[in-house]
Amino acid sequence: MADSPNCDLKPLSPLQLFERVTEQGEKVRALKAGKAPKDEIDAAVRTLLSLKLSYKTTTGQDYQAGLPPKDLVLINNGTTKEEDEDLVDPWNVQTSNAKGVDYDKLIVRFGSSKIDTDLINRIERATGQKPHHFLRRGIFFSHRDMDQVLDAYENKKPFYLYTGRGPSSQAMHVGHLIPFMFTKWLQEVFDVPLVIQLTDDEKYLWKDMTIEKAHEYARENAKDIIACGFDINKTFIFSDLDYLGTSAGFYKNIVKVQKHVTFNQVKGIFGFTDSDCIGKISFPAIQAAPSFSSSFPQIFNGKENIQCLIPCAIDQDPYFRMTRDVAPRIGQPKPALLHSVFFPALQGAQTKMSASDPNSSIFLTDTPKQIKTKINKHAFSGGRDTIEEHRKYGGNCDVDVSIMYLTFFLEDDDRLQQLKQAYTSGELLTGELKKVLIETMQPLVAAHQERRKQVTDEIVKQFMTPRKLAFEF
Amino acid sequence: MADSPNCDLKPLSPLQLFERVTEQGEKVRALKAGKAPKDEIDAAVRTLLSLKLSYKTTTGQDYQAGLPPKDLVLINNGTTKEEDEDLVDPWNVQTSNAKGVDYDKLIVRFGSSKIDTDLINRIERATGQKPHHFLRRGIFFSHRDMDQVLDAYENKKPFYLYTGRGPSSQAMHVGHLIPFMFTKWLQEVFDVPLVIQLTDDEKYLWKDMTIEKAHEYARENAKDIIACGFDINKTFIFSDLDYLGTSAGFYKNIVKVQKHVTFNQVKGIFGFTDSDCIGKISFPAIQAAPSFSSSFPQIFNGKENIQCLIPCAIDQDPYFRMTRDVAPRIGQPKPALLHSVFFPALQGAQTKMSASDPNSSIFLTDTPKQIKTKINKHAFSGGRDTIEEHRKYGGNCDVDVSIMYLTFFLEDDDRLQQLKQAYTSGELLTGELKKVLIETMQPLVAAHQERRKQVTDEIVKQFMTPRKLAFEF
Repeated sequence: MADSPNCDLKPLSPLQLFERVTEQGEKVRALKAGKAPKDEIDAAVRTLLSLKLSYKTTTGQDYQAGLPPKDLVLINNGTTKEEDEDLVDPWNVQTSNAKGVDYDKLIVRFGSSKIDTDLINRIERATGQKPHHFLRRGIFFSHRDMDQVLDAYENKKPFYLYTGRGPSSQAMHVGHLIPFMFTKWLQEVFDVPLVIQLTDDEKYLWKDMTIEKAHEYARENAKDIIACGFDINKTFIFSDLDYLGTSAGFYKNIVKVQKHVTFNQVKGIFGFTDSDCIGKISFPAIQAAPSFSSSFPQIFNGKENIQCLIPCAIDQDPYFRMTRDVAPRIGQPKPALLHSVFFPALQGAQTKMSASDPNSSIFLTDTPKQIKTKINKHAFSGGRDTIEEHRKYGGNCDVDVSIMYLTFFLEDDDRLQQLKQAYTSGELLTGELKKVLIETMQPLVAAHQERRKQVTDEIVKQFMTPRKLAFEF
Repeated sequence: MADSPNCDLKPLSPLQLFERVTEQGEKVRALKAGKAPKDEIDAAVRTLLSLKLSYKTTTGQDYQAGLPPKDLVLINNGTTKEEDEDLVDPWNVQTSNAKGVDYDKLIVRFGSSKIDTDLINRIERATGQKPHHFLRRGIFFSHRDMDQVLDAYENKKPFYLYTGRGPSSQAMHVGHLIPFMFTKWLQEVFDVPLVIQLTDDEKYLWKDMTIEKAHEYARENAKDIIACGFDINKTFIFSDLDYLGTSAGFYKNIVKVQKHVTFNQVKGIFGFTDSDCIGKISFPAIQAAPSFSSSFPQIFNGKENIQCLIPCAIDQDPYFRMTRDVAPRIGQPKPALLHSVFFPALQGAQTKMSASDPNSSIFLTDTPKQIKTKINKHAFSGGRDTIEEHRKYGGNCDVDVSIMYLTFFLEDDDRLQQLKQAYTSGELLTGELKKVLIETMQPLVAAHQERRKQVTDEIVKQFMTPRKLAFEF
């Protein structure tokens, strides 16, 4: 990976950070004691100050030598959580850490596996393609059974991709593109069928929204998804409200899952209560069912047992942990998973972007001017308070949202590396960095808008019609 | 109604029975004291003994003058119930009373209305047809909003009928015919569309049964239902497993109901627990949705708000109480209901017949010989222990299952009345009464089998194909 040690997306825990500051302090003292060259000492001091800033942003406390960080308490619905444990479920992502959720901890908590260099190399060997920068940069960082998918793939056994979106509003933001950009790449390098679920029923159940509105959002969102460039001959996009009424295979799998999951289980997994509506309580089965190929008899020629691979943000994992638990009990293979980190809000990495707060996100409908204003006004900066301080001590890549966004959207590894180094050293100012981000996002969003214009209702209809795809099963 | 006072289907409570025995005892004493004619005294004694037998069968205790019945305790899942309260929900019917469930109490508990003479007369005026003997004899005894259906009908506003069946086994018994026989009559006299739901998904969820088996039972049961003589141009029969996958309108109504019912509510209504699967918990919405005409856009031309009338056994009422609660909140009219009593098991009226106990029922597949043997061997008798006693004191129509079955299946009012009187007086012996029942049931079942043979797979397919019916909307 091209990232510098303290600029990757895996944040350190307060304790790890404390130790890094302590080490760096000792290094500075050693350099000074050894009368090292002034340049070398200055660089070490800059790093030390940057680490101290990270420590303060993360813990809300000043670093004090010999005094490790106090436990961080995160409030979640009135219950006190363990130390600095992040809250991650399909409806909430909350962390007290400015660098975002602690993903290594999440891997341990969720019991998934880290996407390591070995796995990335294996994907490269299997596909003969350079791994996507989302893999190289740890944006897709966790998986379940991806090695089994590769085993099967290498033995010419078919699999298919399944991802989805809850169409909660007409406008999608750039963060929503992440799973689709990656899924498009997977579809291309593996050449496999893809199904995309639009959970308009879920949004109707969860939000104060009519069923017609949820259904309309699904079709609008389908346009943005199609604009990502999916192959119409290899992709089936469906709204639950439509597809449930056109596929007996889908409903049968839903009922099978519903028979094998108790209220106690969904209560434990999703935190449902007795006051929740029965629609919410049974919904997890609807998100589970597309993991089974028999939900799509038109695509898989009625074949069951075709392996499914699900690229999604880590917050969707609870649905698929449940699915994987049920699968063997209904005679189906467990779906494999590739998990991404969350896309941070402009205001900082403590929460993911939200479609309901227009200033938390760059929307796919934003004009170049809106993009510029939003980034300049709202993008949380890891820079110093004054130009002088910034030049002297450098910026903090760990908490700087512009750096985070560029890690997602700037494909050029060398350029990204240069920017990070220049920002860390103080050479690059916050305004200059934001300018790079603006110049990256404006054409990206404009190009998306241009592609979206080409997506006619007729094309949407084709994508959303249950049909055979360009594969034989 | 042609029934004699103590031969109707509405049983007395233990206390009422205690009072009747006491009164009759006083009457006998008065007759004896007044030196009344021997015949008159003998008749009064026979009635007294018959009442005492009823009392003993109902309470399990001998009548003791001055000692009213002890509270009857009915065990239901470890909870003690009030006095002699019956247990009635979609999965259980239990009573300690040999004459069956106390239906007047049930009307009060469920908050429904009694089908009284006024309503029966109004149905007769509206349709110009003699009311069905199920109405005349109190077999359909309770309703919700039937007067509103008649108001609308008299104003030429359309309505439709909805009934259903849970296909728990291949073989249906004669008790299962009751709602269908009555629904067929309603369809004929009102000339309205009819939808019949086969809840194969429910049976899969509740029973240890594969989804394929449940679906197969649905098709087999459809044959028996069709053999009742429904008009193919006016009737749509559907399996949930099939129809959910062919109608977006149906699923949309299901989700709407699911959004407006909480787990707390279904827990209260159906007694679900946290250990129940989420399929059971959300199922009530699937039985609710056919109450709304938009679930059948192909029949009602997409029109919402067409009034629904549901003839069903009273144990299904919890589903529709829930439906009626939700209806206004999703902008739909409340379905109206007509409730029937339960069909008693051959062994007695304490429980309804069960498809899982072959001797509890006369099955539609039984041979004439099987019918004869079952009735002779298992039909609970209200007769006396010896012919002499029977001649002297007469039989007890209240608890005699042959009399109950004839009340359901013998259409001739005069003949039924004669039989009851002759049995009560002791003139008719139990063996003779059973012979009448055998001679009633054998041709009825044989005729059903003959009609069922005519029901080809092609006819089933036609009935079960979503389509327009012979009505304009």
